[in-house]
Amino acid sequence: MMGRLRLAHLLLAAASMSLLGAEAAYIRYNTSAGVVKGKLNVHMVAHTHDDVGWLKTVDQYYVGSNNSIQDACVQNVLDSMVPALLKDKNRKFIYVEQAFFQRWWREQSDIIKDTVKGLVSSGQLEFTNGGMCMHDEAAVHYIDMIDQTTLGHRFIKEEFAQIPRIGWQIDPFGHSAVQAYLLGAQVGFDALYFSRIDYQDRGKRKGTKELEVVWRGSKTFGSSADIFSGIFPNNYEPPTGEFYFEVDADSPIVQDDPLLFDYNVEDRVNAFVAAALAQANITRTNHIMFTMGTDFKYQYAESWFRQMDKLIHYVNKDGRVNALYSTPSIYTDAKFAASETWPLKTNDFFPYADKPNSYWTGYFTSRPAFKQYVRMMSGYYLAARQLEVFKGRSNSGPTTDSLADALALVQHHDAVTGTEQQHVANDYAKRLSIGYKKAEELVSTSLACLSESHSKSHCKSPTTNFGQCPLLNITYCPPSEVNFSQGKSLVVVVYNSLGWKREDVLRIPVMSDSIVVHDSERKEIESQLLPIASASLNIRDKHVKAYLGTSPSAQPKFWLAFSASVPPLGFNTYIVSSGKRSASVSSTSTIYSQGGKNGKLQVGQGRLKLHYDTAGALSRYSDSKTQVQASFQQKYKYYIGHDGSGSDYQTSGAYVFRPIGTVPIKTDGQVPLTILRGPILDEVHQQINSWIYQITRVYKAKDYVETEFIIGPIPVDDGNGKELSTEIVTNMATNGIFYTDSSGRDFIKRVRDYRSDWKIEVHQPIAGNYYPVNLGIYVEDGSKELSVLVDRSIGGSSIKDGQIELMLHRRLLYDDGRGVAEALNETVCFDNQCEGLVIEGKYYLKIDPQGEGARWRRTFGQEIYSPFLLAFSEQDGGNWVNSHVPSFSAMEPTYSLPDNVALLTLQELEDGSVLLRLAHLYEAGEHKDLSALASVDLKRVFHDKKIGKITETNLSANQERAAMEKKRLKWKVEGPPSEENVVRGRSVDPSNLVVELGPMEIRTFVIRFDHR
Amino acid sequence: MMGRLRLAHLLLAAASMSLLGAEAAYIRYNTSAGVVKGKLNVHMVAHTHDDVGWLKTVDQYYVGSNNSIQDACVQNVLDSMVPALLKDKNRKFIYVEQAFFQRWWREQSDIIKDTVKGLVSSGQLEFTNGGMCMHDEAAVHYIDMIDQTTLGHRFIKEEFAQIPRIGWQIDPFGHSAVQAYLLGAQVGFDALYFSRIDYQDRGKRKGTKELEVVWRGSKTFGSSADIFSGIFPNNYEPPTGEFYFEVDADSPIVQDDPLLFDYNVEDRVNAFVAAALAQANITRTNHIMFTMGTDFKYQYAESWFRQMDKLIHYVNKDGRVNALYSTPSIYTDAKFAASETWPLKTNDFFPYADKPNSYWTGYFTSRPAFKQYVRMMSGYYLAARQLEVFKGRSNSGPTTDSLADALALVQHHDAVTGTEQQHVANDYAKRLSIGYKKAEELVSTSLACLSESHSKSHCKSPTTNFGQCPLLNITYCPPSEVNFSQGKSLVVVVYNSLGWKREDVLRIPVMSDSIVVHDSERKEIESQLLPIASASLNIRDKHVKAYLGTSPSAQPKFWLAFSASVPPLGFNTYIVSSGKRSASVSSTSTIYSQGGKNGKLQVGQGRLKLHYDTAGALSRYSDSKTQVQASFQQKYKYYIGHDGSGSDYQTSGAYVFRPIGTVPIKTDGQVPLTILRGPILDEVHQQINSWIYQITRVYKAKDYVETEFIIGPIPVDDGNGKELSTEIVTNMATNGIFYTDSSGRDFIKRVRDYRSDWKIEVHQPIAGNYYPVNLGIYVEDGSKELSVLVDRSIGGSSIKDGQIELMLHRRLLYDDGRGVAEALNETVCFDNQCEGLVIEGKYYLKIDPQGEGARWRRTFGQEIYSPFLLAFSEQDGGNWVNSHVPSFSAMEPTYSLPDNVALLTLQELEDGSVLLRLAHLYEAGEHKDLSALASVDLKRVFHDKKIGKITETNLSANQERAAMEKKRLKWKVEGPPSEENVVRGRSVDPSNLVVELGPMEIRTFVIRFDHR
Repeated sequence: MMGRLRLAHLLLAAASMSLLGAEAAYIRYNTSAGVVKGKLNVHMVAHTHDDVGWLKTVDQYYVGSNNSIQDACVQNVLDSMVPALLKDKNRKFIYVEQAFFQRWWREQSDIIKDTVKGLVSSGQLEFTNGGMCMHDEAAVHYIDMIDQTTLGHRFIKEEFAQIPRIGWQIDPFGHSAVQAYLLGAQVGFDALYFSRIDYQDRGKRKGTKELEVVWRGSKTFGSSADIFSGIFPNNYEPPTGEFYFEVDADSPIVQDDPLLFDYNVEDRVNAFVAAALAQANITRTNHIMFTMGTDFKYQYAESWFRQMDKLIHYVNKDGRVNALYSTPSIYTDAKFAASETWPLKTNDFFPYADKPNSYWTGYFTSRPAFKQYVRMMSGYYLAARQLEVFKGRSNSGPTTDSLADALALVQHHDAVTGTEQQHVANDYAKRLSIGYKKAEELVSTSLACLSESHSKSHCKSPTTNFGQCPLLNITYCPPSEVNFSQGKSLVVVVYNSLGWKREDVLRIPVMSDSIVVHDSERKEIESQLLPIASASLNIRDKHVKAYLGTSPSAQPKFWLAFSASVPPLGFNTYIVSSGKRSASVSSTSTIYSQGGKNGKLQVGQGRLKLHYDTAGALSRYSDSKTQVQASFQQKYKYYIGHDGSGSDYQTSGAYVFRPIGTVPIKTDGQVPLTILRGPILDEVHQQINSWIYQITRVYKAKDYVETEFIIGPIPVDDGNGKELSTEIVTNMATNGIFYTDSSGRDFIKRVRDYRSDWKIEVHQPIAGNYYPVNLGIYVEDGSKELSVLVDRSIGGSSIKDGQIELMLHRRLLYDDGRGVAEALNETVCFDNQCEGLVIEGKYYLKIDPQGEGARWRRTFGQEIYSPFLLAFSEQDGGNWVNSHVPSFSAMEPTYSLPDNVALLTLQELEDGSVLLRLAHLYEAGEHKDLSALASVDLKRVFHDKKIGKITETNLSANQERAAMEKKRLKWKVEGPPSEENVVRGRSVDPSNLVVELGPMEIRTFVIRFDHR
Repeated sequence: MMGRLRLAHLLLAAASMSLLGAEAAYIRYNTSAGVVKGKLNVHMVAHTHDDVGWLKTVDQYYVGSNNSIQDACVQNVLDSMVPALLKDKNRKFIYVEQAFFQRWWREQSDIIKDTVKGLVSSGQLEFTNGGMCMHDEAAVHYIDMIDQTTLGHRFIKEEFAQIPRIGWQIDPFGHSAVQAYLLGAQVGFDALYFSRIDYQDRGKRKGTKELEVVWRGSKTFGSSADIFSGIFPNNYEPPTGEFYFEVDADSPIVQDDPLLFDYNVEDRVNAFVAAALAQANITRTNHIMFTMGTDFKYQYAESWFRQMDKLIHYVNKDGRVNALYSTPSIYTDAKFAASETWPLKTNDFFPYADKPNSYWTGYFTSRPAFKQYVRMMSGYYLAARQLEVFKGRSNSGPTTDSLADALALVQHHDAVTGTEQQHVANDYAKRLSIGYKKAEELVSTSLACLSESHSKSHCKSPTTNFGQCPLLNITYCPPSEVNFSQGKSLVVVVYNSLGWKREDVLRIPVMSDSIVVHDSERKEIESQLLPIASASLNIRDKHVKAYLGTSPSAQPKFWLAFSASVPPLGFNTYIVSSGKRSASVSSTSTIYSQGGKNGKLQVGQGRLKLHYDTAGALSRYSDSKTQVQASFQQKYKYYIGHDGSGSDYQTSGAYVFRPIGTVPIKTDGQVPLTILRGPILDEVHQQINSWIYQITRVYKAKDYVETEFIIGPIPVDDGNGKELSTEIVTNMATNGIFYTDSSGRDFIKRVRDYRSDWKIEVHQPIAGNYYPVNLGIYVEDGSKELSVLVDRSIGGSSIKDGQIELMLHRRLLYDDGRGVAEALNETVCFDNQCEGLVIEGKYYLKIDPQGEGARWRRTFGQEIYSPFLLAFSEQDGGNWVNSHVPSFSAMEPTYSLPDNVALLTLQELEDGSVLLRLAHLYEAGEHKDLSALASVDLKRVFHDKKIGKITETNLSANQERAAMEKKRLKWKVEGPPSEENVVRGRSVDPSNLVVELGPMEIRTFVIRFDHR
């Protein structure tokens, strides 16, 4: 080991030595400049932007295969970076995407590892951003953001003892408030840099020198979560296109050898100085940043550094400006040291448009099936980690690591966004599937351990086999699709990953109508059988074949629905057996609006009723408990995607939403309603048109409406791409205002055709008002709130007062010119025949009295994110309950988290310690009761364990929180100081182990348990 | 210095150390394979082919500018090669073009230099070929080949103490016998590798496993100059297109990380083995070479080595074949060790065709003006170096070094060939011009020194100013274009760089017809004034403006011709003054064939007469001394260059000659003859058509015909590109046979529509019979020989019996698809108006009795190569001869080299020693007397110096000849041993210092003189 370390030092020593041994024609470039006071300092930041999948898959990008699609090989970047940095100790480089870096690191020899560690510790190589990917900010849920950042940050901490200081979101297509205050300030970043903001906004900011701001992303936290944010003047490339030094680039290089022709030093220095002065002209302080790199560059790092060496040398010799090798952290420190007062920025940077007709709001919905898969896996990963903790992490057995990696990857801004090529989307899905398979194995094993024994110590080889049904959403569940007549029963273990007790209706497909359900105390419970719609069976048959290669032998006939009640962080067991029609078969009636006699129709067995008018259309919503009533319509329409004809050739595509016309899908009076009624829920089935099927559900015991949609294939044989939206229309007077969540966390007020930062010129009244929706969207009129929650990331808006719309599916025929070079035209192939993608999904709707909507949005939002996890086994005879633990909670039996606190993370780390993340779910003032300080009693959460050591960390768990707070930079902001009354929990007293959480607070702990 | 050497060692040590410290995912590639007996050995030769100018200039290629034309940067190649080789001591790389390497070397720090020296001495980096460029073999004169190779080889020797072992002419477009035996065997190369041979030849050789041969390029030297020669199966790229690992290449890389997707090791190994077996199938012995590289590749060397490491590792693990890092020298040694018997190859590999209609015989003539400029500079460089020796080389003053570099560069196979882009041709010309300017200054100074003093010791600052007239060929000579009326005279110093005394007519433009010429003994000598043709003045006016930016003020009226007699390696002085019509003004008569009365016309004042028929056309040649008579016609015609229409889209272009039709230029009876007669010469002027002017000269004292042509602009407004040839038609029965020189040295027998190595299928009866002509072309009929000698490299043939044709000029409208991407359409611009290039040149013709032609071809060939060097000064009054040395010879006054020996090189090296090259001018049996052993008495050559030490070296002066001979590999050849009687001079006895030279022998010496 010693020899290896010596090498790195010697290489550095050698590099400096060479400066002395200069010969006649060898030029010793003076690259040692630091910041110089009183001069314009040009911070040259050498960087590469490496998408972890886009036109090629992440592995193809890494190894450099499939180069006919794109010449890109990240291995080249990292390999060539090492000697380039060794060559001159002043050279600096930042590296961002840890998914790539970790691939590379794993393959390196110890000597290279030691060398690189030297480069990192000397500051020549700096990890920036530091997550596994540069996550998107619109289509990504904040829990995924946290997880993928933590994964990267902890690796960097463990391997290099480094803490990334800077957020570097240079490519995502718009920027979220949660990124700024949560993934920025609360991660401990000193600054956040990015480039893509609305072109009108950028134009204005250039004029007012407001490209660099203090961003206050959280209303709740105010200035305590401020972050300095730098928006690049144009993009993240070198300025003016003249300083682009990739191995095959066309930029004029600096030719400084007087013995060769075309000596051009003066010329290049002048160009550099001109570019610097132009940028200085729109920038406060005498520090500007040149972003020296772009996508997949530095494949041969020396080709850049060679030119930058020369530029620094000759520019500084010239003396008009001072050029230096820098990093975003050096730049940030210089900005801070300048003691400038900065403009304040609140809210976020959505939506993003780079041209008048080019709103990047299509990608909020692009690849909706993939977006749903990501969300499903995200929730599953949260649950699986809990079960991994309960079982005990095994380095030999299955783990959640592979799912963690896959999930981290798909948060990339060309992954869940839907802006990657089709083969790359397939690759992401494959990775999720592989990761899921491993996690599924772990989950089954853990549940088997937990159900076989009271002991929660490590369980090696349980004998119980659990199956799970990842294809349940397409009505496929082999364990339940069996004949129970042979005296065998189906055991359903229902796991609840929420910190609260939970009662919910679950549904599984079954073969017969003779079904009886018992609970874990052998008590028969109510159940309902619902005939499975042919639309569902159609999806099932095709996709099971497509996914598994074989068709299932028989079709299930019914959905069996029953209500399960499960303790927090625990499971309960239900037994499904054959019985004498014990389960109610739903009553079925079909209503043809024209000829129907039931003039007015009412659906719902409980407090909530949906009323349909004579034409068979939804007309009213009423809740007998809250007394809320609202007139109410729900419709579908599609936008025709622009085909690029005309003067502005912008098309609608994977990124851009550019509708050319709106086509309502007429349902009034055309579509028969099929109504299924039963003791648990009512369902209204509607075949809206040949490619839209809808089931509206009202649960007896629930106070919201669930709408399931099956959409596709979107027809395109008329030559038009289509973007399908559903809309809920009420007569609420919403005054142009609606609210959408920021990355699934805070809600931000949106005003139609308005931007708070500048006076918007409206060119796209629809696309320009779309916003990302991860959790939900709501409107209010002073007396009530209409909330819609979603099961995946989606684009939504309120295009008219009282209206909410969600774009559910898109199928387009043209590439939209932002690089992906494919039309977003997803198809699925069965037996060599391909047809447009069919999606299945749900949204949830509730109308609350004004001021009460938040509770549902928050609580039920958590339930959507974390649905029951079902595991199935078989009981032969009646012995399950005797031989197994039928019910379990990890927490103290009577304990539950407070209503306003969610458990975001419970995860065993590699070293056996446990990562715990608790989140307050409400913003300050969001709810009259629930926006209060909350407390969690860890002794009761971990009632059977002894907490030996608890350390509170920053959000990404790579540093102690106190240390982070201590070094936080306090930036001066223009304008009067705001009045703030920020409530935060106190630091945890190890003796009582109570965690307090103020509104919106997320607290992260690393806990070491004592072995009992 | 110590530290630097240690670094290189440590880097190597580190590289091997890393092999031990392997971790789980780090793969230690075993690349240590050497040759394995009993297996098929795949020698992977990592190489880059770097044209020293082609689509970009040499400097642009070096620094990587102008990348929009071609992504190429040689600095990247060499920079990245160093860490790549340090990474694994088994990796090997060859580097070829020293013009690039020297540019790079000059810029390196000492530490890099030391590191590279380590890599060279360990054999990881091997210099191959080692000349400044990879010279062409068709359009290049052997003296230029020697000079450019020597320049590269001596640098390598001095800097690295290395001797390149291998000729590596992988890209030139056909291969000359002189390359094989002289620049190959006599340089000391152990083998010669190349790829471009006729496609039919290649096809046959593949079938008979005759791609690797022993090439016996010299009839005179026989087996003593054999060289093992390997022709690549296809090109010089990696096999099958699948193993091409440039940083941006599309070849499938080896993906061997099982944790990533697309693992493909088996697949890649299979592909490699299949490629190896396919090549083995056409190759003798179990050694094959994979040429791993191509044009300008290895810009990031690691991208190749990374994949080759893996291939070697996994292929050898597989075990079917043995893959190894190799070099051409390792490969050659393995071939030699196999003790195989090889097929014999004689003659050369011209012409080259890569497809049936694609004969690369156009480039023999492409850019004829540039080819002439190169030849002029070549002769001038030879003379200038002599004068540099006489004066003493000065490191501060002007030297010939810059001209040496420029001349070396233009021997490149995309330089003098004319196959570079126009801007690159301009760059070459600029370099020659700059080099010339420096050499001109040196020459003037040296002549001033020599003429001012008898002492030949170092002369610091002579006072005499000499001007020279590099634009004399376009009738521009400022020193002579003055009015001598003011009592001032023009001093003309005439330098003869030949080793023989020489009498020749020189011509200078003068303003008046009152001119008298005196010799250095103040004796008036005969002179003749010839009115300058308006065609000449036209060229002059336009081009002086184009070249110098200003027009000359007045036009000269006459050429003044007089005969100068100059001692060997010396000068004589002539004084031109105004006088009373002492010079004869030529009598002028214009003959109109139709109406002319002189039915038969005879030109020539001496033994040689040209006879014109009644139509004014040349009809007969007669020499009264030899009694040779021949009927004789001389005509012009042009070929229409193919435009690529039709099924084979091959066009005529810079490389390819593909005529689509022949158009005779009718002169008979149309063109008036203007005849100038005088005491020294007769001239016949003919305006052949609007763009061809011709002057035929017969000198009273000479026995050959000189034809000057002014051709252009070739009209292309009819949409046809044209390739102009002149033809000499006799009634000699030549039976399809003609002779052309090999790179200006040996003459090779050509047989029309025939190849000795295979039965040719004739698709192109004209283009396929063209051969390069550097010295001359001749035919014979048993009683006489018709020889034509040329003033530059040119294409020529004998398309019909008794006929010789030379292609003089080409102007084409289409690119011919071989990469240059420009049509060969040379223009010259005056005042922003461009017109087709006009060329001026000469060819020389003689008809000798059978067996006597060689003497003229050899002796006069030397005179063409080394014309008188003229320097001009002004004499005010009559004091020049008093104050100056009027005549000088470096040799002993009565000594002269034998008629069959030429002085190729006399050059002072940087260390003060002198490089001497003497060449026997005749092949064995070429001439009944002159093909005998010749002797040169060095004591008389260097009569005023004392030779302290004389060392005979190989041709490129980088090793002692004896050592080279000793290590020469003797290859076994198929067939019966040939009877050989090779005459070579004995080694030089230091006591008598006589150099013996057998036929064709070139002997090279490094001489150290004792200071007296």
